[in-house]
Amino acid sequence: MSELPIRDELRGVEPYGAPQLDVPVRLNVNENPFPPSERLVADAARAVADAVRNLNRYPDREATTLRERLAAYLHNEAGVALDTGQVWAANGSNEVMLQILQAFGGPGRTALSFAPTYSMYPEYARDTSTRWVTAPRDEATFGIDPDLAAKAVAEHQPTVTFIASPNNPTGTAVPLDLVSSLHEATDGVVVVDEAYAEFRRDGVPSALGLLATHPRLIVTRTMSKAFAFAGARLGYVAASRQIIDVLRVVRLPYHLSSVTQAVAVVALEHAAELQARVAQLRDERDALAAWLRDAGLTTAESDANFVLFGVFEDRHAVWQALLDHGVLIRETGPDGWLRVSVGTPEETTAFKVALVDVLKEQQR
Amino acid sequence: MSELPIRDELRGVEPYGAPQLDVPVRLNVNENPFPPSERLVADAARAVADAVRNLNRYPDREATTLRERLAAYLHNEAGVALDTGQVWAANGSNEVMLQILQAFGGPGRTALSFAPTYSMYPEYARDTSTRWVTAPRDEATFGIDPDLAAKAVAEHQPTVTFIASPNNPTGTAVPLDLVSSLHEATDGVVVVDEAYAEFRRDGVPSALGLLATHPRLIVTRTMSKAFAFAGARLGYVAASRQIIDVLRVVRLPYHLSSVTQAVAVVALEHAAELQARVAQLRDERDALAAWLRDAGLTTAESDANFVLFGVFEDRHAVWQALLDHGVLIRETGPDGWLRVSVGTPEETTAFKVALVDVLKEQQR
Repeated sequence: MSELPIRDELRGVEPYGAPQLDVPVRLNVNENPFPPSERLVADAARAVADAVRNLNRYPDREATTLRERLAAYLHNEAGVALDTGQVWAANGSNEVMLQILQAFGGPGRTALSFAPTYSMYPEYARDTSTRWVTAPRDEATFGIDPDLAAKAVAEHQPTVTFIASPNNPTGTAVPLDLVSSLHEATDGVVVVDEAYAEFRRDGVPSALGLLATHPRLIVTRTMSKAFAFAGARLGYVAASRQIIDVLRVVRLPYHLSSVTQAVAVVALEHAAELQARVAQLRDERDALAAWLRDAGLTTAESDANFVLFGVFEDRHAVWQALLDHGVLIRETGPDGWLRVSVGTPEETTAFKVALVDVLKEQQR
Repeated sequence: MSELPIRDELRGVEPYGAPQLDVPVRLNVNENPFPPSERLVADAARAVADAVRNLNRYPDREATTLRERLAAYLHNEAGVALDTGQVWAANGSNEVMLQILQAFGGPGRTALSFAPTYSMYPEYARDTSTRWVTAPRDEATFGIDPDLAAKAVAEHQPTVTFIASPNNPTGTAVPLDLVSSLHEATDGVVVVDEAYAEFRRDGVPSALGLLATHPRLIVTRTMSKAFAFAGARLGYVAASRQIIDVLRVVRLPYHLSSVTQAVAVVALEHAAELQARVAQLRDERDALAAWLRDAGLTTAESDANFVLFGVFEDRHAVWQALLDHGVLIRETGPDGWLRVSVGTPEETTAFKVALVDVLKEQQR
């Protein structure tokens, strides 16, 4: 191994990823617990059969049909009209993020975010040789202070600033004023990562509404969560046509397979069914957070499909004890906190029962 | 646009890609002309239905089943036994190449290849901020001179050397001696890009046989060509377990969708059917090359599913005239040469008829 010309920053690094453990209740990676309906399955099988008949040919490099459908979906979801040239899609929002950093980050440049936040961002930065810096979020609310953000921008001069909203792992959505003031403060692009946007509470707006007036704003989304499509790998972007055109330069040619394009189009046709599930998950999320607070725990305000809760003196012991009860959650976020995804009602019940037991055991 | 913080090397660059024109006969991007059989289509639809039922969950990050099947296929195809940990898969061999350069190239490092060769390599280098250099291939045979190659390695000290074999756009396979001597000459990794390997003529060996004795060797393959699977985007790698482990660090997590994994496994189950098509294409390729030489043209020796031919004073005029006859080929390679993919017998006939007409017109 030592003879291989591996880049220094990769030596001894383990591949990223939550443990993939085979336990009865998995609430650790913010998956949507509801599988697609049999109607969607049948439509997808039909669409894929058609796609496979042409699989000897390269896919549509521009994914035009899919991008049209994504634009229509965003119009419906957030009330913002976009044309196809303002939307771009890739293999998961992590490929989207890589493309953004290839275009606007890279050697000699800096990406900024606000911690605690999504743990993959620094890996995207590393993989594109972009310097990675963070400024802290508020310790109590996990919000971002506008003055502190402006100071961080002035100090680090980032060409890319990431704001996850709702944030992972805290669930925190930022107000649009903050996005605006950051866009004003920086000459770089501002990426609002809305992977969990569909789970936001009533009255919490999407940053999509700012696109028309904020030319360096990029809003990213994914079909992994609201569309229950984590296995399909479909992330997407809304931004100015100029920004999309730059992403088209750095994208690998034919990056998005014909099959991926076909199944994503089918899922978008079933958006109404999937949105009903999202409404259910939002209610479950609010009920779970209330239950945790009633149990004497602290929770972060969540606009996502998970709840960060604590604060434990030994969070690892709690995580392990839950796992011993057959419930896998995530040990992530600030010291003392744990994150639980919102599952089916049955999964949530199993989690609650296990947690009650665990907390009792811990007191002994 | 000028206000965006775009990297300098991307300013004014157009997205890569052959023109996607709607003409009757498309022989421009080395696609396999035979669509998958209806049996394969039905099996793929069934497999995808199963995958879609679990699409709310993330895919197997390690793509274990697929990698087992790829290892078994390579054993069958090239007689080389590999374990699953020596095989890796990604979205097309272009994602494979990007991962290799992220791991072993990058800022301050150099990638070397031998021109004329695959036009995407410099783009992968640019996208990973790797310096890109080439040494020339022999002007007559398009082979690589071992002394000249060793000199280029000594001069540029590449950490990654790419050898496309069979080479695109020339069709040239290099002898294994050359791979060995290059591996000996460099401290870097040597990537033998065998995208077209299944089309090689009898007696031309695969570099897979060198893996056991050449620890810095990486052999890449794709399902796009032999498997008629360009639309599915499945590239793969065989190398030492240590090298694969480094690629696992730089890969985006969950880079390969459950659906892609499922359809690729199905195609591998139909390998025999697809290999019969490959045998037919090899025969067609040899016949086409012989016909071109009989027509008074020069051809490059081809071990791929295309033929480079010429030499024309005005190749663009010939390309355009063929297009006017409804036949799209590729204007690529050294000055004066054109590249035609091997199509169905009907497509090849259409190409021949058009070319005869065009050559007559050019003489007038």
